[in-house]
Amino acid sequence: MRLEIICTGDEVLTGKIVNTNFSYMSQRLEDVGLSVRWETTVGDDRESLLRAFQLAAERADAVIVNGGLGPTVDDLSQEVAAQAAGVELTLNEEWLARMEDFFRRRSRVMPPNNTKQAMLPVTAEVIDNPIGTACGFALDIGKARFFFTPGVPRELKRMLEEQVIPRLLARSGLQAVIQLKRFHSYGLGESHVDALLTGVEALVPDGSVKLGFRAHYPQLETKLTVRGTDTDDIRRKLEPVEREVRARLGNFILAEDDQTLEGVILGELTSRRGSLSIVETFTGGQIAARMAHLPGAEKVFRRGLVARDLGEVCAAAGLEGTSPAGEITTEIAEAVAQALRRQTSSTHVLAVLIDLDEGADRIEFGGTVCLAISTEQDVASRRSRIVGGREWVRLGAVEMGLDCLRRYLQNLPVYERIDFEKA
Amino acid sequence: MRLEIICTGDEVLTGKIVNTNFSYMSQRLEDVGLSVRWETTVGDDRESLLRAFQLAAERADAVIVNGGLGPTVDDLSQEVAAQAAGVELTLNEEWLARMEDFFRRRSRVMPPNNTKQAMLPVTAEVIDNPIGTACGFALDIGKARFFFTPGVPRELKRMLEEQVIPRLLARSGLQAVIQLKRFHSYGLGESHVDALLTGVEALVPDGSVKLGFRAHYPQLETKLTVRGTDTDDIRRKLEPVEREVRARLGNFILAEDDQTLEGVILGELTSRRGSLSIVETFTGGQIAARMAHLPGAEKVFRRGLVARDLGEVCAAAGLEGTSPAGEITTEIAEAVAQALRRQTSSTHVLAVLIDLDEGADRIEFGGTVCLAISTEQDVASRRSRIVGGREWVRLGAVEMGLDCLRRYLQNLPVYERIDFEKA
Repeated sequence: MRLEIICTGDEVLTGKIVNTNFSYMSQRLEDVGLSVRWETTVGDDRESLLRAFQLAAERADAVIVNGGLGPTVDDLSQEVAAQAAGVELTLNEEWLARMEDFFRRRSRVMPPNNTKQAMLPVTAEVIDNPIGTACGFALDIGKARFFFTPGVPRELKRMLEEQVIPRLLARSGLQAVIQLKRFHSYGLGESHVDALLTGVEALVPDGSVKLGFRAHYPQLETKLTVRGTDTDDIRRKLEPVEREVRARLGNFILAEDDQTLEGVILGELTSRRGSLSIVETFTGGQIAARMAHLPGAEKVFRRGLVARDLGEVCAAAGLEGTSPAGEITTEIAEAVAQALRRQTSSTHVLAVLIDLDEGADRIEFGGTVCLAISTEQDVASRRSRIVGGREWVRLGAVEMGLDCLRRYLQNLPVYERIDFEKA
Repeated sequence: MRLEIICTGDEVLTGKIVNTNFSYMSQRLEDVGLSVRWETTVGDDRESLLRAFQLAAERADAVIVNGGLGPTVDDLSQEVAAQAAGVELTLNEEWLARMEDFFRRRSRVMPPNNTKQAMLPVTAEVIDNPIGTACGFALDIGKARFFFTPGVPRELKRMLEEQVIPRLLARSGLQAVIQLKRFHSYGLGESHVDALLTGVEALVPDGSVKLGFRAHYPQLETKLTVRGTDTDDIRRKLEPVEREVRARLGNFILAEDDQTLEGVILGELTSRRGSLSIVETFTGGQIAARMAHLPGAEKVFRRGLVARDLGEVCAAAGLEGTSPAGEITTEIAEAVAQALRRQTSSTHVLAVLIDLDEGADRIEFGGTVCLAISTEQDVASRRSRIVGGREWVRLGAVEMGLDCLRRYLQNLPVYERIDFEKA
């Protein structure tokens, strides 16, 4: 099945907003085994829209159109869809009632121009939007089935998931049950993980498991897409592959599916009624900022301490009598972590100290990271060197600090060589 | 002049990477008075590329193609460009020498597959890429002039600015001297600012000044694009409009052009040899994280303190004898700021305390912000309520804290009613 996407709207075409709707849709469709072959962006312009619909109708079997379903005069999707299909627009009484109800439940009166959102091509199949007034619809134009979706991201996401993808899968003849399994890792590059996972797809010989990646430094997402006849079939296929991925990536897997690194840490600390304090320098509060605002963190996150000067760090952590000058060491990181633990009575303290290179930002610009994790009974530390410019060092150090804490809490070695550090 | 953009590459088409190159190009082109009319994204696929080139050549006067100039086999732009133009590829000896030199200066030997990057259509005009090995080029296909640019963002940006935009302006017959003036504000919504600035374009009656906006909550960017015969002409036109924008937006303008809010604050503190400490709660370290890592901040940023519990905040700031329970107040924020100032001997302390609503995240979820700024002689504070969900409250409170500090340092009123707070 040849699938295309058309994105509409002046704000997207002029770059005022970045087109994350497109990347979201394309990724989700890939995840269920559907590939987008062509994408077109046009503005709120009748002639361009019509031509875009016609061209896509000549090439594709299915087309998703995003945007242009709003109540204002520059929202043209229904009108141009009707024109391209050679049919009339008609008022959909059912959707009009839905909208009136939508406003009534919010104690508001529907403005008259919203009526426009219930004007649909006569041949259109209504596609439900349970959370907005933009009515989705499907329609044949030429040989292609067109799916019209709203521009509001949360409405689009829900409609894509619940309405559009099932219809596309049915049309494509793909096995309808598909599951996406995701592993999040830190420390190994995409090509390294790709090499480590050579052959895992072949554990299911019928080709129904597909391996993919999405790198967003410093983390990497490894994705398994599995197709099956039903959920049992999928579980049977997925189980040996999942086990193999876990075995090969081992300690580098920091979270799975919708989990996040910070969520895993928060979960580990919550389950043991622990508390956390964090000391950081050049990361400037970013390590704390990943954790402290999370729901539930109010019970776990005790104190964050940020300073750029090592003397200030030591003074603030209550490390008396030492006034270290010069290079940071893991010993200093340990001492700082232990001092802050005594001061705050936290069960766990993470200290991430960084010595930055001198001079202007450049690709070889680096930083030396000395980090330590302290509990009442124990202290662990590691030293590492990250290069790649100021921002790269900052992002890398935030992730390294959090991932070492995750490893510590999961009784894994805090130190394991990673691809992002200099030997 | 009708202008189109074609983005190429499987990573963009599958949504693996969000297409920020497109939004960047389109915005920059808008800034100089050129509007993109149509955008196409296709993968690394010979047939799709050829068809996309042919279709754009039929519709447009000028086309920018992004991506596909790399050394690997899936980089097809030169080859398909030659095919679409009906000409041969030939080795460009000059570019080959440039690349060999590029590698030599980095003490590396050029891998043989890079030679491919010097294979250009015989009719191509070379477009310089001073910072990479991907050779830009221009070529006529049908009635349109095509500009081929690299996918690496920093190479693209430089080539667009220095090579492509001047050529497009020359072809478009637009006045060649164009300047973009930008104002950054916080606290007023886009439609509010639009209304406040009604008529400013008309201060220059020949229509050579254009007003535009780019909203990225919590900040808004107001843009003036000015065209003129030369820089004197532009200065003459811009001056009264700039003055009027400054007068109407007043204290809400927090920075201009490439300045940032945090950079302005750092500049103010640096110039008076000041030092800054920050106390924050639900913002979780994000206020500190905007400032502490900046070049130069090592001399200004003294200490950041993060805690979710008010008692912990007070204890850490050295506010003895008080153990406030219940609601936060501006008085508590002031006391905390003053205590931390005494403790750290900073010239300035910003304290941002937040009481969050109870329950699950939702659109009506809000927070009460009490913030204070303390110096040795003085203390100022404000109270505000922000609603719109946890993330909205967090982002809004970070910006409000920093902007109040900016106002304080610039001797402006710390409190002025903003559009983003509940009455």
